[in-house]
Amino acid sequence: MEITLQQTIARIRPADAAAMEAARARQDSLAKPPRSLGQLEEMGIRLAGMTGKVHNRVDKRRIVVLCADNGVCAEGVSSTPQSVTLSQTINLTRGLTGASSLAKHFGDEVRVVDVGVMTDVPCAAVVNRKVAYGTRNLRYEPAMTRDQAIQAICAGIEQADTARAEGVDILGVGEMGIGNTTTSSAVLAALTGASVEEVTGRGGGLVDSAFAVKKQVIREALERHRPDPADPVDVLAKVGGLDLCAMCGVFLGAAANRIPVVIDGFISVVAALCAARLCPHAKAYMIPSHASFEVGYSIAVRELGLQPYLLLGMRLGEGSGCPLAFLTVEASCAIMNEMATFAEAAIDDGYLDEIRQGDKFTVKGTEQ
Amino acid sequence: MEITLQQTIARIRPADAAAMEAARARQDSLAKPPRSLGQLEEMGIRLAGMTGKVHNRVDKRRIVVLCADNGVCAEGVSSTPQSVTLSQTINLTRGLTGASSLAKHFGDEVRVVDVGVMTDVPCAAVVNRKVAYGTRNLRYEPAMTRDQAIQAICAGIEQADTARAEGVDILGVGEMGIGNTTTSSAVLAALTGASVEEVTGRGGGLVDSAFAVKKQVIREALERHRPDPADPVDVLAKVGGLDLCAMCGVFLGAAANRIPVVIDGFISVVAALCAARLCPHAKAYMIPSHASFEVGYSIAVRELGLQPYLLLGMRLGEGSGCPLAFLTVEASCAIMNEMATFAEAAIDDGYLDEIRQGDKFTVKGTEQ
Repeated sequence: MEITLQQTIARIRPADAAAMEAARARQDSLAKPPRSLGQLEEMGIRLAGMTGKVHNRVDKRRIVVLCADNGVCAEGVSSTPQSVTLSQTINLTRGLTGASSLAKHFGDEVRVVDVGVMTDVPCAAVVNRKVAYGTRNLRYEPAMTRDQAIQAICAGIEQADTARAEGVDILGVGEMGIGNTTTSSAVLAALTGASVEEVTGRGGGLVDSAFAVKKQVIREALERHRPDPADPVDVLAKVGGLDLCAMCGVFLGAAANRIPVVIDGFISVVAALCAARLCPHAKAYMIPSHASFEVGYSIAVRELGLQPYLLLGMRLGEGSGCPLAFLTVEASCAIMNEMATFAEAAIDDGYLDEIRQGDKFTVKGTEQ
Repeated sequence: MEITLQQTIARIRPADAAAMEAARARQDSLAKPPRSLGQLEEMGIRLAGMTGKVHNRVDKRRIVVLCADNGVCAEGVSSTPQSVTLSQTINLTRGLTGASSLAKHFGDEVRVVDVGVMTDVPCAAVVNRKVAYGTRNLRYEPAMTRDQAIQAICAGIEQADTARAEGVDILGVGEMGIGNTTTSSAVLAALTGASVEEVTGRGGGLVDSAFAVKKQVIREALERHRPDPADPVDVLAKVGGLDLCAMCGVFLGAAANRIPVVIDGFISVVAALCAARLCPHAKAYMIPSHASFEVGYSIAVRELGLQPYLLLGMRLGEGSGCPLAFLTVEASCAIMNEMATFAEAAIDDGYLDEIRQGDKFTVKGTEQ
């Protein structure tokens, strides 16, 4: 497993600079004031860097949702019962949850993977890659062993490899795991040195007393386990979750396979940051989506040097930001592939004079 | 014409409070932490207020693009030759421009209307509602007469009435008119009392010297014509443009017909503000889209009490922000119409115990 992880990291190449240069030249030749389509232009250029091609399509889109339970829920850090992890894991396959109803509506595939739900999942549509029946309670013990963390990361890498084999054009990374804003805040604090106060929010909607407990639990866990910020696997194993590990694996695997990969909200961006710490080149394949309402999001996305472009105050998770992000990426492809260049859009010189003179008038490329 | 305008304003009703209340109750019954889908929930509730129905669809989507020339271009206030108004007016009908290539890609109709291009437009696909062959130079003369302004507003109202008759579910409002960031800045300054410095940007990409001229021209026009801020038609006639007038008419007409209407960028939001000043209830039917890069945008959108949710650094105009906004509205409809309620998503109580006991296990509503 350790070998798979190292080999995957070794496969990740920097963005293709020549393709990006060609893409930028194409953007500048399109019939519009230079840079007037802003991030839609930049996204098209970044896509070229990822795939090595100027013209891209994102027709086959897949959200991979990694599901796992967190032992820390025993501390009362979540406003939602832990059993919801299982019920929503199943509902995700049926197009009934927030993310999956959006995905179904817009024609995106949803691949639901169990890497650590606390019970067996009685649903054939959920891919079983269970590493453990939930993690241990990180307030008192490391959440998992290093081997388990790597096994979960590799489960995520496998999903990206499968996506490549199945011709997926773009991936999104979501999760379902009650308690995972607690693990994400802990991992973010450990990786960045930010204070627990700065990185911890109310998740699904904690009341004041439970919010105070959540922060206290994270503080204690960090003090007890002292995760090594230079070793993201150590951080993930000690204060993370199996979902976070597997998500980190999807980001690494997507980069290794040159597949653009969309970051959803807070948990997703923390997993992306873990991947970027394991391999900085992986950042070139990441596409942000919405600015999560959850407080730590902005710290993590800034660390990645990325800027979200959907401002919707969302904090649902599950990959719910991915469908609209896929469509934004699709818009950037439409600009690159379908908009006219200045040469194509031009109308013969002197045409205004011709009109004034009442002459027959032809628009280049069509009859009017 | 004056009568049509007054009758249209009289038809505009406030948002339907009962429908909004029912929509909010539906949102709160969906299987997610309350308000966790943020603006996607709010948008669904606002749509209910517009149409009077909890469940809405935005299948038939149309961008109305109002095209006109501006006499003030003689002052060198634009980096783009004035002839581009005509060429892009035609190209808009062919799916070649930024906005129209996106619209074509995503299946949105584009209705291109000439309300003041400086020449005849030799293209049958462009709707001819020409009020004048361009406006006069507002540095020295009022841009148009009051009658012309009202005639252009009514051309916009007509487009909304037509949209209702043709079953359009949602409208977007775009423009093509070289020089129209100058007129929009002038109108915004006149309506709000903001300084010329605050509301004036570089448009398509002005160099320093031309930018200084642009601001000087606006200052002189405001001083010379002294438009009455309490009379938006006076403001539009003296320092506006025929495109702005007609766009304002589309916003009013959409509200009168209870059709949700998307604001594009800077010019569009200034036209929306004119409509809101003519009839405050019109605001209830307006949906923002992207935060335009153009400096005055944020002042105008704040005046409307709206917040853009697409952060893309765009400043192209033409209605280019509408296709992605339509999809965001569509996402809000998918949430309202297709996501499960808590009752629908629930799995029988005690299911975790059942699993632990190895019993046969059924998820409500499906066989696993």
